[in-house]
Amino acid sequence: MTQNIYDDPEFFEAYSRLNRSVLGLDGAPEWPALRALLPDLHGLRVLDLGCGYGWFCRWAAKQGAAAVEGVDVSVRMLERAQAMTQRSPHNAVITWRRASLEVFEPPEAAFDVVFSSLAFHYVEHLAELLRAIHRTLVPGGRLVFSIEHPIYMAPRDPDFILDDDNNESWLLDSYQMEGPRVTNWLADGVIKQYRTLGTLVNTLIDCGFTLSRLIEWGPTQAQVDAMPELAQERERPMMLLIGAHC
Amino acid sequence: MTQNIYDDPEFFEAYSRLNRSVLGLDGAPEWPALRALLPDLHGLRVLDLGCGYGWFCRWAAKQGAAAVEGVDVSVRMLERAQAMTQRSPHNAVITWRRASLEVFEPPEAAFDVVFSSLAFHYVEHLAELLRAIHRTLVPGGRLVFSIEHPIYMAPRDPDFILDDDNNESWLLDSYQMEGPRVTNWLADGVIKQYRTLGTLVNTLIDCGFTLSRLIEWGPTQAQVDAMPELAQERERPMMLLIGAHC
Repeated sequence: MTQNIYDDPEFFEAYSRLNRSVLGLDGAPEWPALRALLPDLHGLRVLDLGCGYGWFCRWAAKQGAAAVEGVDVSVRMLERAQAMTQRSPHNAVITWRRASLEVFEPPEAAFDVVFSSLAFHYVEHLAELLRAIHRTLVPGGRLVFSIEHPIYMAPRDPDFILDDDNNESWLLDSYQMEGPRVTNWLADGVIKQYRTLGTLVNTLIDCGFTLSRLIEWGPTQAQVDAMPELAQERERPMMLLIGAHC
Repeated sequence: MTQNIYDDPEFFEAYSRLNRSVLGLDGAPEWPALRALLPDLHGLRVLDLGCGYGWFCRWAAKQGAAAVEGVDVSVRMLERAQAMTQRSPHNAVITWRRASLEVFEPPEAAFDVVFSSLAFHYVEHLAELLRAIHRTLVPGGRLVFSIEHPIYMAPRDPDFILDDDNNESWLLDSYQMEGPRVTNWLADGVIKQYRTLGTLVNTLIDCGFTLSRLIEWGPTQAQVDAMPELAQERERPMMLLIGAHC
């Protein structure tokens, strides 16, 4: 089974202080671009894989989704999600479920939209998961997800380097060496599963999906003006946003 | 009009000494992977955009293609292609045509397969070209092409850097800054048109194509054993091979 880093107290504590944990969707700079890949959720059945605190599930419910299911492997995350949702007027349409995405078997043709934010890079057996997602979507159903960009994940020692003119370059290597990557993000020894962008796209296609959008997210000028530290994100993409359909 | 660097005497002279010029398809290490994206060409009408010396056109003719058209903007390239083809037994099915890919208007539904090797990164108006290709393909027709990988093209100063343990890293920057890139490959001042991988894929989709394969080419172990200098290609992809259909 995959590492469940979100139930590590040190990691959970650090994660809970991130902008995207405190502010929800609006604390994630890629959210406007990710949201643009989604259809109008009104009346649709929506599944969120790796739902965390449940920000997306509550947003989907608010959009008028007919049913929303949030899945996470982390007990702490689900407890927080439930606590945060109790007083929401849209509470009734949301179901929370604890499951590992490695062994996830949702019912056939049960959802119109599957969403996932920054969770798939933890999944070791991604083809199995994508086949399960394809099965649980209705014909024409949509998969919208974000994942760490392979350029960001590949290097043995992910970092920028400064040249004499203070220009930053990302140190890229090991691109063709797929497999686990151990990083020290928020806690030591976080294990992610690195795949090339080609492998990711071809796995989607082999699992029956048609690619409809591939966004290598970068900040807008307005975002850089508001948060100058985002300028770095122009040098190399950190996140990949993908829209696909059955 | 795009720069026609291949008619620059210095560039042409240097280009003519490359393995892929002397040895043809077998001198290009990505050829086995690119060939694997092609259907059986027997009886098909095939168009090669940026045909160069015509190696692919002659190979397609030898596979039994019903008709092969090779297009290039370079007079020198086409002269060489014609001279090399004269004594080929498959000469009869091949047509050579001089045209710029920027203003190319082939007839409607005239081809089953469009092929292009390392030419599209010179094209400024790629969406217009892809729409023209879509029009000239029959329904279900195939587009197979290679292009320099955005990771290879993006940097302001494309190069590797060595760390203290002699590990190489590619200096990646400027990824979100699309537009022309001037390099000194074979001759000074070669202009290429840089786009992100996302833009390339989304332009294909917007022009009516369905993506069927995306290969970020890297060498096999056998290739590295035979040519140790190819090991570097594992650190960052230099070429992107794409298969798409109408």
